[in-house]
Amino acid sequence: MKYLFIFLSGLLLGIGVRAQELRYVDAATLTLVNKAQTTVNPYHRIDTARYRDLTAPAKRYLLHSAGIAVVFRTDSRTIAARWRSCEHRLYNHMTGIAATGLDLYIRRSGEWVPAGFACNRPAEAEHQAVIVEKMDSTEKECLLYLPVMDQIVSLEIGVDPDARIVAADNPFRHRIVVLGSSITHGIAASRAGMAYPAQLERRTGLEFINLGISGNCKLDASQARMIARISADAFVFDCFSNPLGPLIEERLAEFVAIIRAAHPSTPLVFLQTVVRGTGNFNLERRAGELHKRQTAAEGMRRLIAAGDRNLYFLDPGLDPGSEALVDGTHPSDLGFKLIADRLEKQLLRIFKHYDIR
Amino acid sequence: MKYLFIFLSGLLLGIGVRAQELRYVDAATLTLVNKAQTTVNPYHRIDTARYRDLTAPAKRYLLHSAGIAVVFRTDSRTIAARWRSCEHRLYNHMTGIAATGLDLYIRRSGEWVPAGFACNRPAEAEHQAVIVEKMDSTEKECLLYLPVMDQIVSLEIGVDPDARIVAADNPFRHRIVVLGSSITHGIAASRAGMAYPAQLERRTGLEFINLGISGNCKLDASQARMIARISADAFVFDCFSNPLGPLIEERLAEFVAIIRAAHPSTPLVFLQTVVRGTGNFNLERRAGELHKRQTAAEGMRRLIAAGDRNLYFLDPGLDPGSEALVDGTHPSDLGFKLIADRLEKQLLRIFKHYDIR
Repeated sequence: MKYLFIFLSGLLLGIGVRAQELRYVDAATLTLVNKAQTTVNPYHRIDTARYRDLTAPAKRYLLHSAGIAVVFRTDSRTIAARWRSCEHRLYNHMTGIAATGLDLYIRRSGEWVPAGFACNRPAEAEHQAVIVEKMDSTEKECLLYLPVMDQIVSLEIGVDPDARIVAADNPFRHRIVVLGSSITHGIAASRAGMAYPAQLERRTGLEFINLGISGNCKLDASQARMIARISADAFVFDCFSNPLGPLIEERLAEFVAIIRAAHPSTPLVFLQTVVRGTGNFNLERRAGELHKRQTAAEGMRRLIAAGDRNLYFLDPGLDPGSEALVDGTHPSDLGFKLIADRLEKQLLRIFKHYDIR
Repeated sequence: MKYLFIFLSGLLLGIGVRAQELRYVDAATLTLVNKAQTTVNPYHRIDTARYRDLTAPAKRYLLHSAGIAVVFRTDSRTIAARWRSCEHRLYNHMTGIAATGLDLYIRRSGEWVPAGFACNRPAEAEHQAVIVEKMDSTEKECLLYLPVMDQIVSLEIGVDPDARIVAADNPFRHRIVVLGSSITHGIAASRAGMAYPAQLERRTGLEFINLGISGNCKLDASQARMIARISADAFVFDCFSNPLGPLIEERLAEFVAIIRAAHPSTPLVFLQTVVRGTGNFNLERRAGELHKRQTAAEGMRRLIAAGDRNLYFLDPGLDPGSEALVDGTHPSDLGFKLIADRLEKQLLRIFKHYDIR
């Protein structure tokens, strides 16, 4: 009855809030989480000017806001956003919501619950959208994930004119930095919050910092040097998906050595590459992927056998026949859930040795 | 070693087949499955000219190829497609692969395994793409799902010039016709084959015929009259997602009566609407959805109590906090899997009373 009343009142009082009637605050004055470092543009993941020898595509992707989230507390009944971005492109293998949109979670009884999204529609440089409205006016803790495949130039959060909005404490503990391929980047999650690092952080309460570099995470020494200069309680590497076997063989030992020199005892967790569906029937792809996996496993076995007790090798173990891939390579939300299920247990088992809990 | 050899040979012999070097056959000469009826354009789901009182959007959507698949057997090492379509638009809440692309499965050891996809990229009227290549040359049974949100004008399947390609028998038994909302239509599955009717047919071996009419499945009498003229072993109705409570109350009894008059004892299975995430915090939406669900449940209770023993009411039971929705309304592949998991058991339990197995 109460809901019916609210519902009917809503119908009588008219349709939704208009985004321009709200009060906007600069998101940079709130709390940004899942950041590897401070950057001049706060929505960039890495200040690429500091790492001049990174390749051009790695630099471009590290400016994407993938994984970064804004956290704040508000009693507003409406939450909106107004933002400018550089790329705002649509892709065939992912949704526009993931590529260039925003993904809001609100904490309820300790759980992060999906609360709304903002679509950049049509994809354009400047955009404004109501994310959720007609909420009750209790204060809420909000977690707003930024676009997976776009560079944010500016972002403002809109609330009711008389509502309070303040920076919240970082809800996540410790710092787990994940360097990886498109799969870490979050391609092809349906929303930014469904990439496996984001799922893992909501589940575990640990901060997972996304440094996915779609297609360009090939055990480059330049990326190892970047990681050497970033502080973290643990590093996770999804670095066997992009390079072929020969490149893995050539680069792995040096890659680990560069990072180890800077982080002598930090746990380094390498992930085996996800078995691709593209090899289900294409024999050449299947052989190439198998060779890659074998080279990665052998290389890791050798490094671990050499005595580094803080080096780990895990398998996310996605079955390519499981229908969990969008395009034979990139997981759907189903695939990302299966990866997170598997990694959550394995990572927590490792992390507890380091008091990361 | 064998795979390594094949892999290295592949590298030496050069890259992929080019789509234009193949031999193309008209897909209309192969077997089209998941069709409610024969149509002038074989890739339309319904010959809308026969049902003049359908609304304009219902007619438009029924021309989409959602759910239709081509089945064939071939020993070709390459499978490609060349097709023309009318809409070929990209959407923010679904992938281009689902909206305008093709989704191939191949049967291996009795199981349908994802084999490749064709992307209409950039989205355009005429397109040509290799779906899978470099397979072995054993004969394979292929199931190619057509686009979810596009009208196909013509479609040809490409194979190696010396390969055999023939129509296959319909691999699915019986005829289950599903009339429904966008969720049945397959929005926002990542590929056509991930819509829940398609998942159910691969799992059960029963033919699920998709008549999803995104946003426009509102218990219209015109749609009931269309269903009255379609033959099936069972009908499934996802008809409580699009209409609001008052419309359900007004239309449900007449909708069932029209269908019942034509199909006196065919099982009619109504699905409760999926609980939407849009009501997680928006109180008006939550109240509206709750009212809709209550009206649907009450209406079905009354009709079943009136003595129709072949009328059923099931709940796909998706938890809106489960992160299984893309945009608060439409399931991701994760959501579609959860729906299929739940419906599979419930539907098979009903169907066995009718010897549909």
